[in-house]
Amino acid sequence: MEFPSKLIENAVAELSKLPGIGRKTALRLALHLLKAESDSTASLAEALAKMRFEITYCHTCHNIADTEECSICANKLRDHAMVCVVSDIRDVIAIENTSQYQGVYHVLGGVISPIEGIGPSDLQIDSLLKRIPESEIKEVILAISPTMEGDTTAFYLTRKLREFPDVHISTIARGIPVGGELEYADEITLGRSIVERQRQAR
Amino acid sequence: MEFPSKLIENAVAELSKLPGIGRKTALRLALHLLKAESDSTASLAEALAKMRFEITYCHTCHNIADTEECSICANKLRDHAMVCVVSDIRDVIAIENTSQYQGVYHVLGGVISPIEGIGPSDLQIDSLLKRIPESEIKEVILAISPTMEGDTTAFYLTRKLREFPDVHISTIARGIPVGGELEYADEITLGRSIVERQRQAR
Ligand SMILES: [Zn+2]
Ligand SMILES: [Zn+2]
Repeated sequence: MEFPSKLIENAVAELSKLPGIGRKTALRLALHLLKAESDSTASLAEALAKMRFEITYCHTCHNIADTEECSICANKLRDHAMVCVVSDIRDVIAIENTSQYQGVYHVLGGVISPIEGIGPSDLQIDSLLKRIPESEIKEVILAISPTMEGDTTAFYLTRKLREFPDVHISTIARGIPVGGELEYADEITLGRSIVERQRQAR
Repeated sequence: MEFPSKLIENAVAELSKLPGIGRKTALRLALHLLKAESDSTASLAEALAKMRFEITYCHTCHNIADTEECSICANKLRDHAMVCVVSDIRDVIAIENTSQYQGVYHVLGGVISPIEGIGPSDLQIDSLLKRIPESEIKEVILAISPTMEGDTTAFYLTRKLREFPDVHISTIARGIPVGGELEYADEITLGRSIVERQRQAR
């Protein structure tokens, strides 16, 4: 296959390095940019480069940030007594998306995984244990995916957090997804959702 | 929803302006770039900007090009006696992808569409009619989509090309897609494929 232009060939090659973007999609995107105003390509290229080169990590919660403190930690309207521990930045964004949480976060940067050689010291665990006594934190919510590695990490954190008897520890509820049908739930989820049933207020 | 960083918020906003890229996908792409080496974002941003600002159009065939002549027109190994007329650059790339065509192209830049106010003078038709006597072209292949507008355009071109009695005119074959099942073909395609049946060599 001959591309009529090296410039478009390069753009397609770069775009198709992105996850989930095949060569066909990359070509469609490149041709879209060629047809649109040149301003739109300029602002896309600039936004990507600025994001990559200017982004930093919050000194408090290790979330992505524009300055030393992320906008969530800097927000005085949020509940700084409640910290939600997640493994990854995308979990922060997913939880923010629900608009159901008003506390702050702590991003571990992964989960404990002996197979991948990731131990507790590779994660932002020490900084969490240091952060608690220095802050007004009253509750730590463990919002870590219920996978084997996630459960190991949550177990390790729970043990470490016993150091702080005044701090409540909770985990996000597990169970049947809202709108999900019981018969299609996997057995483990269904089993857990019965064992950890929630009592209705009456 | 609160983004922890304006930088990522902007990148997501720009990415989700691309066709077929929703906010979720845009976020996934942005987080991927943040995790990868910063070089990869730099080369993506540069490739897009270079493509958009440096690309030009071939003076001969109106295909996208890096210089005044596209790499297909410049390629002496290709058959310059055969010109394939297409409506759009993406058709060139689709045909190149098949590796079945060794001639050159002529990109019209659209099809005749009275509804959208596109007439023959808005397309690269005059330049095709000027190109033929100045070149060694012996065959014009009309590779225009068999839609109503495409057929109108092909009909118009066929009439105009009668000016050149020594030039053969052909259209790409229409029929059942290779691997397609007869019973699922639409009636018009199936009807045409019978009327325009191809005689087997014996
Ligand atoms: Zn923060
Ligand atoms: Zn050309």
